Amino acid sequence: MKKVAIIMGSDSDLPVVQKTVDRLVAFNIPYTCHVFSAHRTPIQASQFAKDAINNGYGVIVSVAGMAAHLGGVLAAYTTLPIIGIPVAGKTLDGMDALFSTVQMPPGVPVASMAINGGENAAVFAAQILALNDEELREKLILYKANMEEKVLIKNKDIEEKYNG
Amino acid sequence: MKKVAIIMGSDSDLPVVQKTVDRLVAFNIPYTCHVFSAHRTPIQASQFAKDAINNGYGVIVSVAGMAAHLGGVLAAYTTLPIIGIPVAGKTLDGMDALFSTVQMPPGVPVASMAINGGENAAVFAAQILALNDEELREKLILYKANMEEKVLIKNKDIEEKYNG
Amino acid sequence: MKKVAIIMGSDSDLPVVQKTVDRLVAFNIPYTCHVFSAHRTPIQASQFAKDAINNGYGVIVSVAGMAAHLGGVLAAYTTLPIIGIPVAGKTLDGMDALFSTVQMPPGVPVASMAINGGENAAVFAAQILALNDEELREKLILYKANMEEKVLIKNKDIEEKYNG
Amino acid sequence: MKKVAIIMGSDSDLPVVQKTVDRLVAFNIPYTCHVFSAHRTPIQASQFAKDAINNGYGVIVSVAGMAAHLGGVLAAYTTLPIIGIPVAGKTLDGMDALFSTVQMPPGVPVASMAINGGENAAVFAAQILALNDEELREKLILYKANMEEKVLIKNKDIEEKYNG
Amino acid sequence: MKKVAIIMGSDSDLPVVQKTVDRLVAFNIPYTCHVFSAHRTPIQASQFAKDAINNGYGVIVSVAGMAAHLGGVLAAYTTLPIIGIPVAGKTLDGMDALFSTVQMPPGVPVASMAINGGENAAVFAAQILALNDEELREKLILYKANMEEKVLIKNKDIEEKYNG
Amino acid sequence: MKKVAIIMGSDSDLPVVQKTVDRLVAFNIPYTCHVFSAHRTPIQASQFAKDAINNGYGVIVSVAGMAAHLGGVLAAYTTLPIIGIPVAGKTLDGMDALFSTVQMPPGVPVASMAINGGENAAVFAAQILALNDEELREKLILYKANMEEKVLIKNKDIEEKYNG
Amino acid sequence: MKKVAIIMGSDSDLPVVQKTVDRLVAFNIPYTCHVFSAHRTPIQASQFAKDAINNGYGVIVSVAGMAAHLGGVLAAYTTLPIIGIPVAGKTLDGMDALFSTVQMPPGVPVASMAINGGENAAVFAAQILALNDEELREKLILYKANMEEKVLIKNKDIEEKYNG
Amino acid sequence: MKKVAIIMGSDSDLPVVQKTVDRLVAFNIPYTCHVFSAHRTPIQASQFAKDAINNGYGVIVSVAGMAAHLGGVLAAYTTLPIIGIPVAGKTLDGMDALFSTVQMPPGVPVASMAINGGENAAVFAAQILALNDEELREKLILYKANMEEKVLIKNKDIEEKYNG
Repeated sequence: MKKVAIIMGSDSDLPVVQKTVDRLVAFNIPYTCHVFSAHRTPIQASQFAKDAINNGYGVIVSVAGMAAHLGGVLAAYTTLPIIGIPVAGKTLDGMDALFSTVQMPPGVPVASMAINGGENAAVFAAQILALNDEELREKLILYKANMEEKVLIKNKDIEEKYNG
Repeated sequence: MKKVAIIMGSDSDLPVVQKTVDRLVAFNIPYTCHVFSAHRTPIQASQFAKDAINNGYGVIVSVAGMAAHLGGVLAAYTTLPIIGIPVAGKTLDGMDALFSTVQMPPGVPVASMAINGGENAAVFAAQILALNDEELREKLILYKANMEEKVLIKNKDIEEKYNG
Repeated sequence: MKKVAIIMGSDSDLPVVQKTVDRLVAFNIPYTCHVFSAHRTPIQASQFAKDAINNGYGVIVSVAGMAAHLGGVLAAYTTLPIIGIPVAGKTLDGMDALFSTVQMPPGVPVASMAINGGENAAVFAAQILALNDEELREKLILYKANMEEKVLIKNKDIEEKYNG
Repeated sequence: MKKVAIIMGSDSDLPVVQKTVDRLVAFNIPYTCHVFSAHRTPIQASQFAKDAINNGYGVIVSVAGMAAHLGGVLAAYTTLPIIGIPVAGKTLDGMDALFSTVQMPPGVPVASMAINGGENAAVFAAQILALNDEELREKLILYKANMEEKVLIKNKDIEEKYNG
Repeated sequence: MKKVAIIMGSDSDLPVVQKTVDRLVAFNIPYTCHVFSAHRTPIQASQFAKDAINNGYGVIVSVAGMAAHLGGVLAAYTTLPIIGIPVAGKTLDGMDALFSTVQMPPGVPVASMAINGGENAAVFAAQILALNDEELREKLILYKANMEEKVLIKNKDIEEKYNG
Repeated sequence: MKKVAIIMGSDSDLPVVQKTVDRLVAFNIPYTCHVFSAHRTPIQASQFAKDAINNGYGVIVSVAGMAAHLGGVLAAYTTLPIIGIPVAGKTLDGMDALFSTVQMPPGVPVASMAINGGENAAVFAAQILALNDEELREKLILYKANMEEKVLIKNKDIEEKYNG
Repeated sequence: MKKVAIIMGSDSDLPVVQKTVDRLVAFNIPYTCHVFSAHRTPIQASQFAKDAINNGYGVIVSVAGMAAHLGGVLAAYTTLPIIGIPVAGKTLDGMDALFSTVQMPPGVPVASMAINGGENAAVFAAQILALNDEELREKLILYKANMEEKVLIKNKDIEEKYNG
Repeated sequence: MKKVAIIMGSDSDLPVVQKTVDRLVAFNIPYTCHVFSAHRTPIQASQFAKDAINNGYGVIVSVAGMAAHLGGVLAAYTTLPIIGIPVAGKTLDGMDALFSTVQMPPGVPVASMAINGGENAAVFAAQILALNDEELREKLILYKANMEEKVLIKNKDIEEKYNG
């Protein structure tokens, strides 16, 4: 199976990345994690993107805060799908990272997840990879069913306790 | 090849959709367009999402403005990747649609493009489908090269005219 | 009397819901609580809305954060009045949920309360139900009088302590 | 049937009010329109709200822009449900009116529609009044069905024209 | 001397009001404090404004959060200058209160201070009252001189410690 | 009577200033207008503020857009009340000017009017000056009565035309 | 003298660039203009930045809209000062470009001008270059004096026409 | 070497200033720190700016929160480059200070760093001064290399720990 690369702009993004990793592990999707800053290690970031297809990657997840240019820098050097996770910094609640991630110009998309949306980047990567992987499709369907079941269990609990 | 479905919440979204269509046509990717409102035709929207895999779709593009729930409604009923295009309405410049599209809860992602970002939805869909389609990959590489060339031509023109 | 249904998208919304419940109990309005996610249990959410009139409900309160689609999903399947409470999440202070709740397109309204405005959803539901319930109208008038009295007591205290 | 009162803060709000009126007329709901400014005619606005129940009103629609205090002023003097329509002014795109309308404190709700959401105020008023009016309920169901049909007709047209 | 009335919408606004009170006391300006909610005690709030001139007030300070209508309600019933202090609530950081306070329509101004700007409301009231009170003018000049001196003392300290 | 000074940062602010002037003329309040930029003519702006009391001014109205520092610069050099009008520029709808005008630090207030709120600056200045001018007070009361009457005339017209 | 490089992300930014060019010409500062997109021609953009010092540049002006990554990409490859001009796009009024330009992480600054602030980028570049160019310093002082004079002429005109 | 002046509007800005100081010290750039409020000590602030060139300064860093006028006030009195650091206050997350700092009118630029971006002000000042200081240029290149190396070390660590 094609691998998922998770590139974070700083290791301070690890709490968000952890959610992505946990979900990929649960889906048994091969992945690697990297710290490449768009501004401090632009050459390594670019090179990673350039080589990603040849190195067996199918999807790149970009995780960055503030003026989150990382997704755009990676997208500039590859035709692989880039999933961007805007990370909330110390101010502005992630609005800066959201705008920097999502407002890409025509021709070079970055697909934005919710602010700090680590788990969904993994789910979306799985949905992409499942297009040619029936086993992964089954896992996604099971995952969806499990989510539904968890809500229904909570619902049963709430319905019993809260009514009058 | 798997098809791309473009679902718009209203036919007033057609100018944005047209950019998606033009790009898919240029990539020779099979597609269909539909008007299904999350709120006015929820059953048809849900049903479309439920059947999408069996009907040969690989990616769904959701195009909606204001409280743009369409992407989330489709994502609720399928494990296919959903690409959301937030459309700017008469007020708020698309901020409402952007938040409604991108801020999906864990487990049910919608991948947001830029506000009114019609062309990029097609490019991102192509990047997904190219994971198993070398010919499409080549087209993406060519598309990227053409974009580069166009910029370089403009650059040459500007460099000549503007210096002192 | 017609019942009030409170649907929350996640049991993390309980602190807000509690305020709605407490007020409904104080008004002696029959109610039930449910956890139905627009995205994780769309079928149950839709079904609840479809059956709500026949099941004796008069008003539905929808409580959700982030891309709060729940109110819109419920509104799509019923002609009952839907009251939406946007809940503040970990980022954006509820602006995302407010826009997703209030910016509904023509034909399918959701009536938005303040961010985290649990008590007012109950008051507004009571105001709706009181249109045909004189006893409830009296309770609302008493509730309003009590609020006034509480303010006047505080005022008396402040007026005495703070002047110079 | 109980009447709907539409109070606008200024006659410059008429384009938004017209959409409310047209929809109420289509539902055959009795209504009256008034211009009462919260700041220029506070006594008349208050008096209207105080007398509204006795004068046969069941719902009040408040339409105002900028620091849209009108809904709150009306809500202060009655226990009838107040539906607020925030109107976009010359700057800020209606954000000021939205916050002023929706962020009501506990105990005194105003139910906010979308910015400039004239039609939905009428639909929501109808949903309230239909709780005790089966004929109006039928009209709402028909209205919903018509909306669905219109979308499906557009969909048919788009599906035929846009595919490849 | 004419008195300053401080009206707060809720006693939860006391921390902000305290700063206003402390400054008025320092200027030896007579004042009274009151809790009158625009929505819970509209009659008392209106009555206070109507009687304010006759009761010897020269300035009214309105302190309120969320959909801060209090300033506008007071302004509707008097021609005295109203100074509004928008108070930050649990969400939105006071943006809601700021818009509700400052965006008053032509003819009925409320003069907005900074969010939570308790001290400045007192200073501004003093600047108004000083127009006909030379002694108060002297106090304002002294206050300004004291502020300057405090900054210069801090500056001296910083200049010594921080240089290289 | 003390005069009102209107200082605009640029003559592009004249349309907003005109509304202030017209209202001052209607109230027969003496005034002068000036163009002093906080950044291009800081010395003249400062000097004007320093001399304003001695030159017979009672209130200064500051009119500026973008990073509207003018009000703060004037307030730094005088103890007269400064009324600030934030002007909407070509982008950001006046949010920049509003924040720059209203968010003054403790000790140096600028009283903000609504964005582009030219007329209200004159009304607020009149409310200040009327504290010691019974004739002006009467004009303000008449002005308020005229506003009320205009609304009531419009109301009568609307009430007749719009009901059903 | 060291040259100023103006890099625009797209030739649609020319109206903003023109203001920069006109001002540089007026200061007689040597400059060149280029179109290099951070996303479409990342290699050329990077290369330009890498070579800029050796090619005789002293300052780089980056002009870009939407997710304006250009300034950051250039800053990643050079230690020259980068001045960023955020350009307002079709939606969001330049807030996206402002955040993307100004919110750079520690170590890699981009100095942001106002949205669409073409002229100031040239002025700021001149202020930098004037540190070692007395003649340019004189031009800046003259430019400042001219601005002052223009304001004073307008002021004289306004003072004569507007007073009463 | 020309000195860097750091002017803060209040000593509460010291935590941000400390980052600027630490970086200047590391670059061995001479600097002095000052507390001059634009509003409380306008004369001293202006005087400092007027004398700055003669006193051997090459760059001024302005650090201020809320309606951060300090940068503009300094820029009004000198042709030296002004670097502005908007500081986040107790509300609004620094948006007010950012707008007040960056939205300067044509002719009088202030170059804005990120909100609370203390270190980058020092880096940008160094980039300016390095235009005529090869030794400082070398330090900047080394600084950049060190940043790169630190990221690569973290990357190595993360790559080893996080993959599967």
